[in-house]
Amino acid sequence: MRVGFIGLGIMGAPMAMHLREAGHDLAVFNRTASKCEPVRAKGAKVAATPREAAEGAEVLFICVSDTPDVHGVLFGPDGAAESLAKSSVVVDCSTISADATEEFGERLAAKGVAMLDAPLTGGDVGARNATLTIMVGGEEAVFQRVLPLFETVGKLILHMGPLGAGQRMKVVNQIVCAVTLLGVVEGMRFAEQSGMAMDKVMQVLTSGAAGSWALANYGPRILKGDFAPGFPMKLQSKDLRICMEAVREAGGRYEATALADKLFREAAESGLGDNGTQAMIQLLRRT
Amino acid sequence: MRVGFIGLGIMGAPMAMHLREAGHDLAVFNRTASKCEPVRAKGAKVAATPREAAEGAEVLFICVSDTPDVHGVLFGPDGAAESLAKSSVVVDCSTISADATEEFGERLAAKGVAMLDAPLTGGDVGARNATLTIMVGGEEAVFQRVLPLFETVGKLILHMGPLGAGQRMKVVNQIVCAVTLLGVVEGMRFAEQSGMAMDKVMQVLTSGAAGSWALANYGPRILKGDFAPGFPMKLQSKDLRICMEAVREAGGRYEATALADKLFREAAESGLGDNGTQAMIQLLRRT
Repeated sequence: MRVGFIGLGIMGAPMAMHLREAGHDLAVFNRTASKCEPVRAKGAKVAATPREAAEGAEVLFICVSDTPDVHGVLFGPDGAAESLAKSSVVVDCSTISADATEEFGERLAAKGVAMLDAPLTGGDVGARNATLTIMVGGEEAVFQRVLPLFETVGKLILHMGPLGAGQRMKVVNQIVCAVTLLGVVEGMRFAEQSGMAMDKVMQVLTSGAAGSWALANYGPRILKGDFAPGFPMKLQSKDLRICMEAVREAGGRYEATALADKLFREAAESGLGDNGTQAMIQLLRRT
Repeated sequence: MRVGFIGLGIMGAPMAMHLREAGHDLAVFNRTASKCEPVRAKGAKVAATPREAAEGAEVLFICVSDTPDVHGVLFGPDGAAESLAKSSVVVDCSTISADATEEFGERLAAKGVAMLDAPLTGGDVGARNATLTIMVGGEEAVFQRVLPLFETVGKLILHMGPLGAGQRMKVVNQIVCAVTLLGVVEGMRFAEQSGMAMDKVMQVLTSGAAGSWALANYGPRILKGDFAPGFPMKLQSKDLRICMEAVREAGGRYEATALADKLFREAAESGLGDNGTQAMIQLLRRT
């Protein structure tokens, strides 16, 4: 299949590589062109603009950071929308606002271009191992057309509903992840302050009702002082801003989500933005 | 061994039964005497007062709800302290304040009685299956004396440090559990409000970084509308009050813990106290 891919970051680069290795005719675009080198060496074409990456593509993947980035590569100067063919599909794997997604989908539909929102979870490891979870919103028939490509890069692929439903599922996921991590770091911080033997603390916590993916994966990194991203604080903070927009619109009580939004923003804006989310404990250690 | 056991609640009753079945000479006391019947049928002596349960005991287990309850059974009228023999050991499995524990330990030490704090995690299921995690504080030599009894009722048994260290470990555990559960219920609540297919939501959440014991165990109960305790809201709220005392003394930022304390107290005081902690989602559904 002729596939375009925009955004070769920590997630996009290995995904593009898997698509190329599966034999697809691939054109890639990335702001920093050097990131395209590995996949170019495997036979992908490197495009100079989003417009060029989208030219002739049956499916165009976008994997960038935030709502304005998606808007830019689609509708900005030399944007993909200038060249996308009728009946092609835009698959946006970025985590952005569901409302903006619906708006972008409408603008593309006016040109006869379909859209799926397909945010990811599973991290850099999942992208490298093609074990991502992909939450997809959009028309069922379009989902079915793209499904073989999703299966090349992911493991659990779920059609959640109409366009935007993937992003709303991602909101659910990010709320749970962020709040869970707050529990892990506050618990570990109290253990530190109490001078406990941290190996025993981890044994107790992982043995029972306190256990979580966050504890199992971030706990050991915190103990080693390893704050490399995984998932960078500034992206977690960006995702929580999107979560807050979503829960405000839904209405109701989301006090833990609001607290996570506040704390991750504070951490991201006070020197920890490029660290992994586990660096939240560093914020607590400052006081 | 001659063992006394005070408090045959949801945790204490199966623990006492395991000790009796292991062949120990057991005397039990419970405020509601009918709860003693199953273990009496297996040959345990039923005591009329804490003092009587403690008489001649080499080790006296206490498994009650809160700090004043432990104080009462030890030092109240007909309390265990009146009859405890020199060199006997009090093992308090309740979750209470570490500071009060240290105070009780001093009062007992003045009578030549040793004390261990030994709070539990693993829930009613862990108590029934003798797979509890037990976090023990107190002198190493005393811990070693009681270890065979701990091994009769638990699986992971860790000596955390001096008297009070078990309770401080429990604080860590309860912070992580309570905050993690807030993340689970706020995430699930947003999914409900968005009208998502909850089976798919659970598949996504359990597949990746949002996964936790709380999600795996409480998520399905929430979907079934099963709010029976497991762990009752009012005890979670009581534990969080103890957590707040502990983190205030430690100093620093524990904003998620404080939020959990606020929300679980509100839930416990507004008609959900006898429900399991997963009923937190009911509080969110009211708005």
